[in-house]
Amino acid sequence: MMMSQATATPLIERLLAPTLTPLLWDDEAGLVMLDQRQLPQAVMVLTYTCPLAVAEAITTMVVRGAPAIGLAAAYGLALSVKQSLRQGLSLQATLTQLHQHEAVLRAARPTAVNLMACLDAQLAVLQAWQASPHANDTTVLLAELTQKALALHQADAAGNQAMGRYGAELMPDNAVLLTHCNAGALATGGYGTALGVVRATAEAGKLARIYANETRPRLQGAQLTCWELMNDNLPVTLLTDGMSGWLMQQRKVDAVVVGADRIARNGDAANKIGTYNLALVAKAHGVPFYVAAPRFTFDAALADGSGIPIEERCGDEVRVIEGQAVSPAGLPVWNPGFDVTPAHLITAFITEAGVFTPEQLTDWLT
Amino acid sequence: MMMSQATATPLIERLLAPTLTPLLWDDEAGLVMLDQRQLPQAVMVLTYTCPLAVAEAITTMVVRGAPAIGLAAAYGLALSVKQSLRQGLSLQATLTQLHQHEAVLRAARPTAVNLMACLDAQLAVLQAWQASPHANDTTVLLAELTQKALALHQADAAGNQAMGRYGAELMPDNAVLLTHCNAGALATGGYGTALGVVRATAEAGKLARIYANETRPRLQGAQLTCWELMNDNLPVTLLTDGMSGWLMQQRKVDAVVVGADRIARNGDAANKIGTYNLALVAKAHGVPFYVAAPRFTFDAALADGSGIPIEERCGDEVRVIEGQAVSPAGLPVWNPGFDVTPAHLITAFITEAGVFTPEQLTDWLT
Repeated sequence: MMMSQATATPLIERLLAPTLTPLLWDDEAGLVMLDQRQLPQAVMVLTYTCPLAVAEAITTMVVRGAPAIGLAAAYGLALSVKQSLRQGLSLQATLTQLHQHEAVLRAARPTAVNLMACLDAQLAVLQAWQASPHANDTTVLLAELTQKALALHQADAAGNQAMGRYGAELMPDNAVLLTHCNAGALATGGYGTALGVVRATAEAGKLARIYANETRPRLQGAQLTCWELMNDNLPVTLLTDGMSGWLMQQRKVDAVVVGADRIARNGDAANKIGTYNLALVAKAHGVPFYVAAPRFTFDAALADGSGIPIEERCGDEVRVIEGQAVSPAGLPVWNPGFDVTPAHLITAFITEAGVFTPEQLTDWLT
Repeated sequence: MMMSQATATPLIERLLAPTLTPLLWDDEAGLVMLDQRQLPQAVMVLTYTCPLAVAEAITTMVVRGAPAIGLAAAYGLALSVKQSLRQGLSLQATLTQLHQHEAVLRAARPTAVNLMACLDAQLAVLQAWQASPHANDTTVLLAELTQKALALHQADAAGNQAMGRYGAELMPDNAVLLTHCNAGALATGGYGTALGVVRATAEAGKLARIYANETRPRLQGAQLTCWELMNDNLPVTLLTDGMSGWLMQQRKVDAVVVGADRIARNGDAANKIGTYNLALVAKAHGVPFYVAAPRFTFDAALADGSGIPIEERCGDEVRVIEGQAVSPAGLPVWNPGFDVTPAHLITAFITEAGVFTPEQLTDWLT
């Protein structure tokens, strides 16, 4: 079932340049993804031809970040039809298997709503195809699912560029910014949401420094954010998650900018665990707290954050670091993957459609 | 110069039982300390006969925790005279070397004031000896420095027991507590300051659960606090430093209790980095925030926290975990070892002399 394998440099080069992206579609190879668990020690590429392996890649965090896992799932449904064609399945069997794969992908991680939104977009493609004159031709379905996934991918990267420009306008000259986790190119179709704002601020000549929380337990800040910002020669400094308050006491911090995994209609925002602490710390210091996210991350069906499901992950993520046990065997651990920052701690949302305060969200979303 | 060596079980047993202590004096062996860098993976003992090696043990965190490093330094001056006797040094050479050792020990770590207070106590012993009829007999000086160090050690452990009782009185039934770093038996002469309060709460039958922040970068919470509390069969749960706010949102937390490395006259308190964030988070949730510390940790000479020197430690403590690089090579890192929590975030100080609000401190200290 695991159809992943290490591949040679050409695919790696297409992931890394001209702009970094965590995943790409190759008509021959299938879905190609950076193995983000190996960064920054090794740049490894895995190639997927089976949608169930893509679901496992989402669960095990080969690919992570709300927009990126949505795109991986969208490509995953194209892989499903490709697999059925390869297996010579009937139309009925193809559709049955497609729905099975869709259910497994949808359940791969619960918190980020982009996963559900991208799968819904592909189900709309399926319905349109079923109502079309080509409803018997699964090669057309494959082409349309692939085209939609590519379009979602391109729209995400383009949206992040727009988001970046809106965000950069909010930043002062010589801006010192602070971020949490990785809401970068690696978490999206490219360029990044929060790190898109950082990149655009740098492109506008206004970035003095970007501080990165290491983001325990998975260390996405240390391993991913620092890696992608160093590759872009941006002035990044790493700190641990407990240092943000002292940083704001001791040095100038102009703004915090983070991504999100799901945002309710009232502006309550789920994001990587530790974001809520950071928002409280920013509030106490009067530092603006921005959430950068595309429209897909907003869940208009949810009135507030209490309805957002929060994934609890294995305690070994806390107990064991890089294969080394750092605490006593058998120790009880609490390991929520996300937290919810209430809207009143959020200065504004930076989206591809502009900047909105929490109060302005309902109008935009409806 | 490094006179440390691994030794056999009897000394280990004396460190672990009847009550855990991170260090002890043995007239034959010298100063015996647990190597806290190895916990919880290995329980290793190092034996010191040279005070310069003790200073290095303080710097490299073989022994850590404000009270414990003060005691190690006090024993270190006894070792200095013992070494001079062994070397057959003259009275003058003994005193010259003693002052050199005292200066090196004093500079081993800058933030915790207990180190300076314990060395000052030993200098008072030296002065009294110099004014005594035995001022030519360095064997008497050795005996008196040893006796003083033992007395400081016993007083610290006894003070922690008193502190614990005062603290336990503040806690409700079925108390759920949260702590940061290790202010336990391992950080003191025994029993612990913050963890002394936790132990006394348990002994009073009132402890439902103690949550422990892992405390990056050195992971003293995960490695030391969890180890010593598990050994006492106390109900400890580990979490990462970024989870405290979400914990208070999702579960009952009755109080935060932490130790301190130096407390100014107005109540501003330096403690392990991450404490300030935790105090802000507790304040936002209306959770009482207690600092447990002996009189030696209060620096009555300092009007407020702005005068507390904050140690900045090597960036590799953040970049490398258990020998594994977790971030890109050459990455800039900010690594302050401590932060200062302002008095207005502190509900009360729990000391061996009773419980004081920040406003009550000046009267007590003068």
